[in-house]
Amino acid sequence: MSLLVVGSIALDSVKTPFGQVEEVLGGSATYFSVSASYFTDVHLVAVVGNDFPREHQELLTERGIDITGLDRVEGETFRWVGEYGYDLNEAHTLDTRLNVFESFNPQLPEKYKDIEYVFLANIDPEIQLKVLKQVKNPKLVACDTMNYWIEGKPEALKELLRHVDILTINEAEARELTGEPNLLKAAEVVKGYGVKHLIVKRGEYGALMFSNGSIFNAPAYPLESIFDPTGAGDTFAGGFMGYLANTDNIVDSSLRQAIIFGSAMASFNVEAFSLERLKNLNYDEIKERFNEFKKLTHFDDLK
Amino acid sequence: MSLLVVGSIALDSVKTPFGQVEEVLGGSATYFSVSASYFTDVHLVAVVGNDFPREHQELLTERGIDITGLDRVEGETFRWVGEYGYDLNEAHTLDTRLNVFESFNPQLPEKYKDIEYVFLANIDPEIQLKVLKQVKNPKLVACDTMNYWIEGKPEALKELLRHVDILTINEAEARELTGEPNLLKAAEVVKGYGVKHLIVKRGEYGALMFSNGSIFNAPAYPLESIFDPTGAGDTFAGGFMGYLANTDNIVDSSLRQAIIFGSAMASFNVEAFSLERLKNLNYDEIKERFNEFKKLTHFDDLK
Repeated sequence: MSLLVVGSIALDSVKTPFGQVEEVLGGSATYFSVSASYFTDVHLVAVVGNDFPREHQELLTERGIDITGLDRVEGETFRWVGEYGYDLNEAHTLDTRLNVFESFNPQLPEKYKDIEYVFLANIDPEIQLKVLKQVKNPKLVACDTMNYWIEGKPEALKELLRHVDILTINEAEARELTGEPNLLKAAEVVKGYGVKHLIVKRGEYGALMFSNGSIFNAPAYPLESIFDPTGAGDTFAGGFMGYLANTDNIVDSSLRQAIIFGSAMASFNVEAFSLERLKNLNYDEIKERFNEFKKLTHFDDLK
Repeated sequence: MSLLVVGSIALDSVKTPFGQVEEVLGGSATYFSVSASYFTDVHLVAVVGNDFPREHQELLTERGIDITGLDRVEGETFRWVGEYGYDLNEAHTLDTRLNVFESFNPQLPEKYKDIEYVFLANIDPEIQLKVLKQVKNPKLVACDTMNYWIEGKPEALKELLRHVDILTINEAEARELTGEPNLLKAAEVVKGYGVKHLIVKRGEYGALMFSNGSIFNAPAYPLESIFDPTGAGDTFAGGFMGYLANTDNIVDSSLRQAIIFGSAMASFNVEAFSLERLKNLNYDEIKERFNEFKKLTHFDDLK
């Protein structure tokens, strides 16, 4: 099945202990859609300025991503400047210039309205909901959010969550959103918002999925070198939703496999800056890494 | 097979966000041996003062632990006073009084010298080595240590590690010991010390085992209430070594199962202060929790 994503496209300047890059391709919709493109047809909704390099746009189309919903408007593309210390789990934002993203008011192309798998990347929850309402018969809707919206638009966010099946957020955000330091209790609160599955992203410690009393723990793939964690969460979400849209079978076993595919994609992404690693994968490598996760977590049953 | 442990017995005063206790039974050898006692015969070496309550000693003997090697000497038992904030991963030591533990110079009872499975809990590495040298034919030796010894006696510690098969330490200690922030690289350094298996304990994020190119990731069991993490690491080690001594088959598959048993035991331990939960378990409960870890981590292979 096809997959719709709405989110940001950005030009990122990133410094990590291992190097730095200036104005490289980034943004939640970018990471998500390139990651998901290895699994299914992806249709993107986003906005860029007229300064957006053509080569970046070509990267998306070369991955087969439908960019009918990509608006190119007068002005500058969204810029993000960030830095990571040796603790690569947390980004320190040095500068955010929303530019054309500030007046982002996405209208879905007609052909997008029948798409059944939807990912609402981390943007204003009012816009997330506005996009979702244009989709005729969504089958599975996932969204991301962040502390900025949890603090700034809590009511809009909760209204959105009533229409969402899966929420993917990081550990600190799960605690802030629910006011519960314990994740099991936080998961219960999120369930009360009407969300079926909560996925808590824990960076180098992997991810936890809470759904209907069942809990699934996925590790992160141990890597010798993590160059740049930017986009890891959206890359995870892309692998996760891409696989689900491809299987079109939303049961516990495929949700678990989807989490492993998401984790595998994220593990590739952090091996290089921007989309350098992510753009040149093949499905065999991805499957191989999936199988590595099996070796990493498998233990025999008791006799 | 039988299992030997040398370590501390203490009277702990602990404060957590969920309550506090004064002078309760604690110490690395205590947590280790009670945990291991559910799997195999445990023989303990430790020292207490003549103020050590008889009821605590009885708790050990009721669990079938051989305390021939427990010295009761003139003076006061080791005291530890600690506190945890909402981040239960890290203990803040408020007071340590070594008391009789200061002149601890363990001599193994004759019958202990043939024991093949050995755990050297976190004490002075010179004493750990001195104990180990009294064991005639050790088959599997594991040890713990801490930042205090890594900083204070690095050479003695490295000499010890040349005689040890398994090192269990926490994440920060692994980094400090090796000078490597990356755990994969830290594991290579530890291998260079002569240690076959490195187990990195990560508190609420579980444990990682590195052995011979194979990596195993075990999650922590998600709990609604963690009352007191004191002793979790030693309880983990007790379940781990207890299971290995019981199976007497040191291969990758049993090492992985042993890590799950260790994690299961630790998950029980943190549910209450002191050994309140740990002392009254039964093997069916333990197996049930082992199986819960399977549900928590299992995902289907790709077709």
